Amino acid sequence: MLNISERGQQMPASPIRKLVPYAEAAKKKGVRVFHLNIGQPDIETPGAILDAVKHTDMKVLEYSHSAGNESYRRKLVNYYKKVGIDITHEQIMITTGGSEAILFGFFTCLDAGDEVIIPEPFYANYNGFACEAGAVVVPITSKIETGFALPSIDSFEKAITKKTKAIVICNPNNPTGYLYSKTEMEALKDICIRHDLYLFSDEAYREFCYEGNYTSAMHLKGLDQHVVLMDTISKRYSACGARIGALVTKNKLVYDAAMKFAQARLSPPGLAQILGEAAVDLPDNYFNGSRAEYLGRRNLLVERLNAMPGVYCPQPGGAFYAIARLPIDDSDKFCQWLLESFSFNNQTVMLAPATGFYGTPGLGRDEVRLAYVLNLDAINSAMDCLEKALQDYPGRVEKTVKEKAGVN
Amino acid sequence: MLNISERGQQMPASPIRKLVPYAEAAKKKGVRVFHLNIGQPDIETPGAILDAVKHTDMKVLEYSHSAGNESYRRKLVNYYKKVGIDITHEQIMITTGGSEAILFGFFTCLDAGDEVIIPEPFYANYNGFACEAGAVVVPITSKIETGFALPSIDSFEKAITKKTKAIVICNPNNPTGYLYSKTEMEALKDICIRHDLYLFSDEAYREFCYEGNYTSAMHLKGLDQHVVLMDTISKRYSACGARIGALVTKNKLVYDAAMKFAQARLSPPGLAQILGEAAVDLPDNYFNGSRAEYLGRRNLLVERLNAMPGVYCPQPGGAFYAIARLPIDDSDKFCQWLLESFSFNNQTVMLAPATGFYGTPGLGRDEVRLAYVLNLDAINSAMDCLEKALQDYPGRVEKTVKEKAGVN
Repeated sequence: MLNISERGQQMPASPIRKLVPYAEAAKKKGVRVFHLNIGQPDIETPGAILDAVKHTDMKVLEYSHSAGNESYRRKLVNYYKKVGIDITHEQIMITTGGSEAILFGFFTCLDAGDEVIIPEPFYANYNGFACEAGAVVVPITSKIETGFALPSIDSFEKAITKKTKAIVICNPNNPTGYLYSKTEMEALKDICIRHDLYLFSDEAYREFCYEGNYTSAMHLKGLDQHVVLMDTISKRYSACGARIGALVTKNKLVYDAAMKFAQARLSPPGLAQILGEAAVDLPDNYFNGSRAEYLGRRNLLVERLNAMPGVYCPQPGGAFYAIARLPIDDSDKFCQWLLESFSFNNQTVMLAPATGFYGTPGLGRDEVRLAYVLNLDAINSAMDCLEKALQDYPGRVEKTVKEKAGVN
Repeated sequence: MLNISERGQQMPASPIRKLVPYAEAAKKKGVRVFHLNIGQPDIETPGAILDAVKHTDMKVLEYSHSAGNESYRRKLVNYYKKVGIDITHEQIMITTGGSEAILFGFFTCLDAGDEVIIPEPFYANYNGFACEAGAVVVPITSKIETGFALPSIDSFEKAITKKTKAIVICNPNNPTGYLYSKTEMEALKDICIRHDLYLFSDEAYREFCYEGNYTSAMHLKGLDQHVVLMDTISKRYSACGARIGALVTKNKLVYDAAMKFAQARLSPPGLAQILGEAAVDLPDNYFNGSRAEYLGRRNLLVERLNAMPGVYCPQPGGAFYAIARLPIDDSDKFCQWLLESFSFNNQTVMLAPATGFYGTPGLGRDEVRLAYVLNLDAINSAMDCLEKALQDYPGRVEKTVKEKAGVN
């Protein structure tokens, strides 16, 4: 029989992209849709790095080294040094986006049936890569009441079994925007050492921290063999489409095994490596501009959300996401309704239902993720839409005072 | 324990790339190395398609559609029409190189323990992608005596079990250069229909056919639901480093399941999609030049090889590879010796031991693969080196007259 594999059947569809047909239909009706549903910033890719590609004099677009061009990796050593991470170019593997770094990390360290603990809500595609590796995601719930702080160490201890191989952390966090403290990172270190677990650290948003200091998993002393850093230039330089990331680890066995997966796919994208290498040469103050821009957007978004009756949004410390609790019956229904049945001044807003970011069924039904990737005017208009929508939505649910305050 | 996964341990290292350190050492000694070991052509990437990237006016390098830009896919419909393949843009998925098309095809159709039959010698990275999917490669041997024609239908029938899900064919073939005839392709069709098997067809080299006509798996009538085409622009336009390929299928269930894997990794490389799209606009006679160049190289290479005592190389009908039988004890040893211990006029040649292309242990020990990706002068010099090396090599083994003629 021409069956689809079990893996192909179980593979989750992207919860971020599943509403796309409704957005397309809305646009066909002439409605303007504000895309706060996906982490695609409107910030311009630095002209200097696009120019580096435009000025290449290459004659043959050849395969690169499977780990990426050595010249690029050597430059990245300096980039990492500036963020307090001390590594060599032989501990960096250029990947096709952060996505491939996650996949190679999972492939290298996890077998079918192995368990990986992830604080939820989490980046939904971890589910997909775990499915590809046959691994099982074990979620531990972080709560909106604490601003999505790290769940208690006790909850980690309870979740650990003989099959647990790793913990995944995303810091600053997508989808919550939470920035893990040094104390929380040290607590994770202790668990990883105590139970011999890998710590997969997704640090795609390290440049965007607004409250407190960022602690990389690679800043933790004594954890060198445990840490697999999953990185990307997508958000850092607003170059999501380049598909350039990196797997970084001091664990040579992990690196060498990951190299076999890298060799099978030959090399990461060549044109985009030129762009990535040029990005390392951007002036040190480059991030000041984008960080200030995101900070302004965050402040506006969170202020507008919390001013809406029945809405609660904790202040995110980093990245460019926020999760808000809304007075609604079902976030999937609501987000679809926004596109299908609602408009205000011929505009509407696209949000991501938070259900897609939880591993535990039933959670996130009154929460949505908002990506503040649009400019202040667009955010204001989008919030006008949301405010009106919450008044009109037939599935509005009035919360108790306690719930409104986010302290249930 | 911080173990490497079983998958990570079993994942094969690239047999093509494992001799690289010896080549690097030779170069450090000042020896010029002719790289006939890898399918990296010296043909220039068309300036017009590199210019398309250089002239882009994009401001933000955004994620594309997970299936690739619609404009590109619509243009590819015309490309495929020209090679007799009638499909829509919704049956084309742009992938990160042909590599990812293979991976998505395997992920979508094969589960752990499922068997996939591949005529050997075969492209070594099929092993890697099968390992990633947990599938088992079942090789059927094609022989140098027949020029590596399709093994008998009987040998396929014998290899089929309840776990067999698919056959992989590469046409024209890497590593043998064999071009499958219409009769052979029809025979494959019959087996696939009789046993309900997928036919994964890797057609990376379709533009390079020198003898007879190319028959795509997609030319076969009545096989629409079975065929998953794995394609790439790497060789077609000498753009290996772009990492742009395509998975093409009329089987909607396969396409939809593959899309979930595509969504998890967000999108294929953006800059390279511009290059790929521009390539479709190259004039129809573009391939005449590169085809003629490769034909001249093939003729020289095969003539030089067959003129060497004890060497036999069948005439390849397509692609830019040939497999030659050499009077040697062990192709792995010989290829390493060429780099480590041999030089002629301060030059040597790097070849790929054919052992890496066989699934059956022990086969290919007196065979090497040669990629005629260098110009005529380089090929002549490389053949001078090989001729001398075969005289000097301590592991030379004299074959019988029958073996020399390749008819044992």
